[in-house]
Amino acid sequence: MMKPVVDFWFEFASTYSYPAFMRIQKRADEAGVTIRYRPFLLGPLFKAQGWGTSPFNLYEAKGRYMWRDLERLCADISIPFCRPDPFPQNSLLAARVAIAGEGHVWRDAFCRGVFRAQFGEGRRIDDPAVIAGILEQAGAPAAVILIQAGADPVKLKLRAETEQAAGLGIFGAPSFVTPDGELFWGNDRLDAALAWAKALPK
Amino acid sequence: MMKPVVDFWFEFASTYSYPAFMRIQKRADEAGVTIRYRPFLLGPLFKAQGWGTSPFNLYEAKGRYMWRDLERLCADISIPFCRPDPFPQNSLLAARVAIAGEGHVWRDAFCRGVFRAQFGEGRRIDDPAVIAGILEQAGAPAAVILIQAGADPVKLKLRAETEQAAGLGIFGAPSFVTPDGELFWGNDRLDAALAWAKALPK
Repeated sequence: MMKPVVDFWFEFASTYSYPAFMRIQKRADEAGVTIRYRPFLLGPLFKAQGWGTSPFNLYEAKGRYMWRDLERLCADISIPFCRPDPFPQNSLLAARVAIAGEGHVWRDAFCRGVFRAQFGEGRRIDDPAVIAGILEQAGAPAAVILIQAGADPVKLKLRAETEQAAGLGIFGAPSFVTPDGELFWGNDRLDAALAWAKALPK
Repeated sequence: MMKPVVDFWFEFASTYSYPAFMRIQKRADEAGVTIRYRPFLLGPLFKAQGWGTSPFNLYEAKGRYMWRDLERLCADISIPFCRPDPFPQNSLLAARVAIAGEGHVWRDAFCRGVFRAQFGEGRRIDDPAVIAGILEQAGAPAAVILIQAGADPVKLKLRAETEQAAGLGIFGAPSFVTPDGELFWGNDRLDAALAWAKALPK
């Protein structure tokens, strides 16, 4: 029997993408849903909305709240939390590596490693040495991958993915899209998206 | 035994305040928590953030998503949904009436009636005749209340409440504040706020 597929659009620099990434595979396995991992960049979408940085930086009260809320959420699901500085981090290199890793067994461990380094250990993910270390820990040939990540096919693919996200109506991360095109935004909507996909006619 | 008290800050024109209001009393009764209803105005807080209207109007993709999300949420809890036009409605009169109704038995029915009229039936809550009708249905002396709602004590109280909300770090509605000052934002955080209040030392 075919499992329904949910597209999981995430951005490495996005705070709520962290708990979403850390719990989605288990929740999806329990629900009998296949997750298609779709790394993309929020920056271009924010720029199109007139924002030069994260709205959590632009709106102080909202930002202060978000950090506390994230801390509570991480405690609830027992994952480490450490506020990144600077915020947001430049996630371009990490996103390109994730694109280059599509179909490779190390990709999931790499993505988890990036989230953990940034939001669990306070490390900078714009540092190629940090990214190389995470790749190695994930069992990937770091030097080769970093070269691939800087080449045109990967750059163009990431750009196309980000454009597709915008075309789907995505404006934030994480977002979930079910096979019928229904959009769910935010870590809080993970279970609703899985349930929606499950309820679709086969 | 004393029940813990959670302050429920809501704004009549706020879309997610609608499902929150419609389900909070039942959830709180089940959780053994007392709800203190705190109507306030989001407009002044939005203005302080540089917004002249709702962010759902300012950011198109986010607005489009919100309407669909709200429709799904209302269907989930079986309450009627009808998109208000114009949006946001001017909620000043409704908020003043709610302030004037503090301690009166009709207040809860009035507040529900305002939310239902606006988000369930597509009626305008800035129309004094609509508000008077809702008051009458709630068993309140409409003419007397409308005069009270326009008098200085009520105006000043509503202004003070809104200032207190801002002082608590509130930037959106609905918001929930527990006795220890912990802030929870959004309809999605209702259960988390109740659980937090329950877990506090007596």
